[in-house]
Amino acid sequence: MEKKKVLVIGSNSFSGIDFIDLLLEKGEYQVIGISRSKEKPDFFLTYKRHQCNNYSFHQIDLNNDLDQLANLIADQRPDYVVNFAALVEVGPSWDNPEDWFTTNAVAVTKLAKLLTQFTFIKKYVHISTPEVYGSCEDKITEDAPLNPSTPYAASKAAGDLSLFTFFKNYNLPMCMVRSTNVYGRGQSLFKIVPRVALYLKMGKKIPLHGGGKAVKSYIHIRDISEGQLSIMLDGKPGEIYHLSPNGAGIAICDLIEIICNKMKVKFDDAVDIVGERLGQDKAYVIDSSKAREAFDWQPRVPLEQGVSDVIDWVNENYNEMSEQPLEYNHKL
Amino acid sequence: MEKKKVLVIGSNSFSGIDFIDLLLEKGEYQVIGISRSKEKPDFFLTYKRHQCNNYSFHQIDLNNDLDQLANLIADQRPDYVVNFAALVEVGPSWDNPEDWFTTNAVAVTKLAKLLTQFTFIKKYVHISTPEVYGSCEDKITEDAPLNPSTPYAASKAAGDLSLFTFFKNYNLPMCMVRSTNVYGRGQSLFKIVPRVALYLKMGKKIPLHGGGKAVKSYIHIRDISEGQLSIMLDGKPGEIYHLSPNGAGIAICDLIEIICNKMKVKFDDAVDIVGERLGQDKAYVIDSSKAREAFDWQPRVPLEQGVSDVIDWVNENYNEMSEQPLEYNHKL
Repeated sequence: MEKKKVLVIGSNSFSGIDFIDLLLEKGEYQVIGISRSKEKPDFFLTYKRHQCNNYSFHQIDLNNDLDQLANLIADQRPDYVVNFAALVEVGPSWDNPEDWFTTNAVAVTKLAKLLTQFTFIKKYVHISTPEVYGSCEDKITEDAPLNPSTPYAASKAAGDLSLFTFFKNYNLPMCMVRSTNVYGRGQSLFKIVPRVALYLKMGKKIPLHGGGKAVKSYIHIRDISEGQLSIMLDGKPGEIYHLSPNGAGIAICDLIEIICNKMKVKFDDAVDIVGERLGQDKAYVIDSSKAREAFDWQPRVPLEQGVSDVIDWVNENYNEMSEQPLEYNHKL
Repeated sequence: MEKKKVLVIGSNSFSGIDFIDLLLEKGEYQVIGISRSKEKPDFFLTYKRHQCNNYSFHQIDLNNDLDQLANLIADQRPDYVVNFAALVEVGPSWDNPEDWFTTNAVAVTKLAKLLTQFTFIKKYVHISTPEVYGSCEDKITEDAPLNPSTPYAASKAAGDLSLFTFFKNYNLPMCMVRSTNVYGRGQSLFKIVPRVALYLKMGKKIPLHGGGKAVKSYIHIRDISEGQLSIMLDGKPGEIYHLSPNGAGIAICDLIEIICNKMKVKFDDAVDIVGERLGQDKAYVIDSSKAREAFDWQPRVPLEQGVSDVIDWVNENYNEMSEQPLEYNHKL
């Protein structure tokens, strides 16, 4: 059987990396990854455990090298395109909001226009974010209105609105995914789970915005990748699908406490309480019944087990990790 | 009494021109206009009838000269900023959607960030569009969800979402206006009312998309300018206000027939039926009860009277007008 070809845009992102790992694990896919950056250090690239002849990487920047991408697509004729590329950090988006709009809305619009030329593409899967809904008390379904609180969220909402115009008018076979916060082995080190594990190991204090009362939903990256694969194969064009964990969200302080307990550090010794972030959405629980019913999808990795795996990963790669930058660096 | 200072961004736009004309007519305002283009030919600039010492023009491009604008604002310390600048055409936005997002979302985001520095600004009025709502059968109120159908509309929605993040987090004293289609003396010649009058006078056929069945609301520009002035002075920050005519909308073919009758040309001789435009929203009637109640505002210029005035304007300036381009020219 001939392998299906999948083009993964944003192959250096944590979600992109795990999605590639899942595709290669299935053995039925030929994967092409692109990113504006060089490939990350190997300890991030969980997909490196597979044989390399089913994966190729190309350094292409969506903001500047769209012609190169057009040539690659024309040449490779992928069956599916899955786009993880975005500027994703919330805090820095207040300093350079225009960069977030340029990447998350303008470049996405150019990409959408380009993709309409390639009728061999069976599905374009776009990774959006529930932050486009802003603060919500109740469980959010896919038809909730857009009400973003930060330039990051507004720029993602802008890209989403743009994509829908290409679905409506050019039948771009687009599905959109909005997932709650992910975590797992391979994640960027400034993200909460690996960061807390790393800080505890280093004996550094963790700055805790607003006391960590904000409730978030965390789901293991492999559960998300499985959901995205179902959406890629069987999602209905023009539809948005939420992916979220079972049960309610968890307060950030409680998540940190789980990690502290596993690493045998006292919570009070581990954190520094600092001020609330601008535009911090208070509650954040999304409803994923639609994807659960459509694809018989459900999360399978318990939080305790997933967190332990991240701690193992930090322990295994501690020397290389401690040489990496631990803060988010904005580059465009 | 010291005059209040108003900075009008997009002073070469039809709506900007009429708003400046209204401000100068009131006699209580010092007006600073900026546009990326040089001032238009005089027959467009209805405000030229006023003495020039209450108006100054600066050629500044929001996309490229933000520093210049920052200096101007710091120097002039306007009480109010009203922003008409946008790429507004729908059809061409499919060819270069990224340009629409760059101007209508990225530049607006940079502007919003800049304005938060100037606490002497009492109000920032942003001119949005009801096209952000997409196709709607019913009367649309200000809380309707965003559902744009074209890159133009999506780019305006993107700018609007971005502005709200600055209202929510930095208390930018922002009001947003969404008005139905305007017409009047001074309007761009490719817009329906002056264009039809000009084509009839030239004996040229009018291309009529989808037979002109699309229903739109037309309101005289002076009614809109009066509403915008009320919003500038008394609008509540963070609020959106609709401005729309009394009664239901009018089909484009019926509007053309009114002009034909006034100019004594047979409708069937005047038009060529052509295909529907991409992303053409079918119906388009917005509810303006909120502004009517808040400001005791209502439209006062009857359609027949306003249309006659445009025809007079075309007759008065026919020689100069026929030397102008009649099609929209995209430039960025």
